[in-house]
Amino acid sequence: MESEIIRRKKTRPIYVGPVKIGGDAPVVVQSMTCTDTRDVVATVEQIKRLENAGCEIVRVAVPDREAAMALVDIKKQIGIPLIADIHFNHLLAIEAIQNGADGIRINPGNTGKDKIKEIISVAKERDIAVRIGINAGSLEKDILSGYGGPTAPALVESALRSIELFKDMGFHSIKLSLKSSDVATMIEAHRTISEKTDYPLHIGVTEAGSLVNSAIKSSIGIGILLYDGIGDTIRVSITGDPVSEVGVAYGILRALNIRRVGPDIISCPTCGRCEIDLFKLSEEVEKRLAGMKEYLKIALMGCVVNGPGEAAEADIGIAGGRNMGLLFKKGEVVRKIKEEEFVDVLVDEVKNMVSNRPNNPGMEE
Amino acid sequence: MESEIIRRKKTRPIYVGPVKIGGDAPVVVQSMTCTDTRDVVATVEQIKRLENAGCEIVRVAVPDREAAMALVDIKKQIGIPLIADIHFNHLLAIEAIQNGADGIRINPGNTGKDKIKEIISVAKERDIAVRIGINAGSLEKDILSGYGGPTAPALVESALRSIELFKDMGFHSIKLSLKSSDVATMIEAHRTISEKTDYPLHIGVTEAGSLVNSAIKSSIGIGILLYDGIGDTIRVSITGDPVSEVGVAYGILRALNIRRVGPDIISCPTCGRCEIDLFKLSEEVEKRLAGMKEYLKIALMGCVVNGPGEAAEADIGIAGGRNMGLLFKKGEVVRKIKEEEFVDVLVDEVKNMVSNRPNNPGMEE
Repeated sequence: MESEIIRRKKTRPIYVGPVKIGGDAPVVVQSMTCTDTRDVVATVEQIKRLENAGCEIVRVAVPDREAAMALVDIKKQIGIPLIADIHFNHLLAIEAIQNGADGIRINPGNTGKDKIKEIISVAKERDIAVRIGINAGSLEKDILSGYGGPTAPALVESALRSIELFKDMGFHSIKLSLKSSDVATMIEAHRTISEKTDYPLHIGVTEAGSLVNSAIKSSIGIGILLYDGIGDTIRVSITGDPVSEVGVAYGILRALNIRRVGPDIISCPTCGRCEIDLFKLSEEVEKRLAGMKEYLKIALMGCVVNGPGEAAEADIGIAGGRNMGLLFKKGEVVRKIKEEEFVDVLVDEVKNMVSNRPNNPGMEE
Repeated sequence: MESEIIRRKKTRPIYVGPVKIGGDAPVVVQSMTCTDTRDVVATVEQIKRLENAGCEIVRVAVPDREAAMALVDIKKQIGIPLIADIHFNHLLAIEAIQNGADGIRINPGNTGKDKIKEIISVAKERDIAVRIGINAGSLEKDILSGYGGPTAPALVESALRSIELFKDMGFHSIKLSLKSSDVATMIEAHRTISEKTDYPLHIGVTEAGSLVNSAIKSSIGIGILLYDGIGDTIRVSITGDPVSEVGVAYGILRALNIRRVGPDIISCPTCGRCEIDLFKLSEEVEKRLAGMKEYLKIALMGCVVNGPGEAAEADIGIAGGRNMGLLFKKGEVVRKIKEEEFVDVLVDEVKNMVSNRPNNPGMEE
């Protein structure tokens, strides 16, 4: 049931721990903690919540030696691969690798060439993955002045320059990201680099802002690239609880039929025709089904204009009337239900439908 | 300062009241009330709030004669063009036009051919605009069965069939929408119709759900089309307060540099490097600047990795350190500020920058 419109560009696969990125692997969802990495308890707690939300790879900041040492303990207590995020100091990268990181992210803009070479030789020895993380906010000074600013070609130039270092040392377990807080710059940079190399791409809009603002920018930037078949792993960046990053990431993948994780709730904006409290219904249903991994299309419709039509396309739906509604399942009217029963009936029916599926991976509420 | 990447497709312009849609006009933002249209006080109050938020055209549901009659009073009290949304009953469309609607939206899927002709002749007489609003949830039965479901080609077929009726009667003041709750269907339908006609397009993902879910689906659907140069007016559909539809709409236009309305807040997701309370800062700044129409790029950055770089690109920004931050303006460090002063200083500086601009259209807080 995956998208028939999108043709994904084939990339050269790599592994971050056991998780495959690129090639024929599904688009991988990742996030990053916002805790102090040295605080192992808080960091592990946050990673567990990310895992529960469906996060498949997690990244932590490693700004000093104490943080690099904490990786040993963090790694023991989590179930998903761990990536160390390194800036400025190549020794921290090397220490992170030695302490069990499944991958590291380095920023060529603030790490020297020779130092990157040192990192590569340790990464090669330990057979871990490296992300070359180009960022418009921290490009190499000569590139920045050469291009007159952090433009898409400047980002591409920075990436190509770093790729050469890795290639020269026969190291190919790399993925690339060319992030910008400017959506169009990020799109154009990834489009260009995607034509020039076949390394897997980690895509995202950086510093995208708060939940709704980031949902807008990330959905446009990541969405346009994925629709073009570009992108092997995604990270939505949100100023807020990182668990919401995972929700938005799956929302993007679901909207494009790239991965179907979690319920797809279709609900109308209501208008002068609506005679039920649809805002409350949709809010309640969303809350009660939060955390569900199973895909299901649920239509919550205020009136008869599009109600039965949308309900016909959904696995389950309600089309509202005056203080009552019709419950639909796969296009068939099942029965009339009273407005006060909407939420309970719907949630029960959804749970039944999901648990009666063959090979049901289970649901959490 | 508009986008250099996007080349907008030229369409045949129409007018909804004084508002031009298509041709060289900016992409127009519209919304729809969720009040009972017969309740004139509540409807006008909501429309006023939409106007304040930057809504440029508003639509109301007209499900019965009483609602059609209410248009007279609503129209007198609002400052933006009014569109009547009609389904099933062509007599309501005619009455809405006679009662002063600046445009009407009809749904060919639930209005008969002959009845549409009657509507066209009144619309022509009164010189108002008509939206042919195709919706996947309410397609003509023969088209639905012919295509085996509400596919993109089915939506296009329905639109083309209706266009013929209007053309035959020499009426060209039309715009088209081919909406679906399925993002890819909506994208493909608009891409196809955009190749086949030059009437302006009203784009949006229908029944997109609650605020965040709709921000995701709408940003992908509307964003991909706008990036391709398709779309003359947009409506974001949200199950919730319609004022938030306007905010998301401008967020999409701003992210693509299509229209610069309101502040663009760049803020990092924070990580183990951050030593200031960036979540609170970004939340507070967003709240205090809500309603501001002036465009300004504001960077709120947790640390020195990308902080100064992003701040250099922004009109104003803060890069955080330990309980303090550096205030930047157009790439220059202005001064150090204490964390407890961040919000007040930033909001004051923003207001000053905006009010000192030539031709300042003013700001609201």
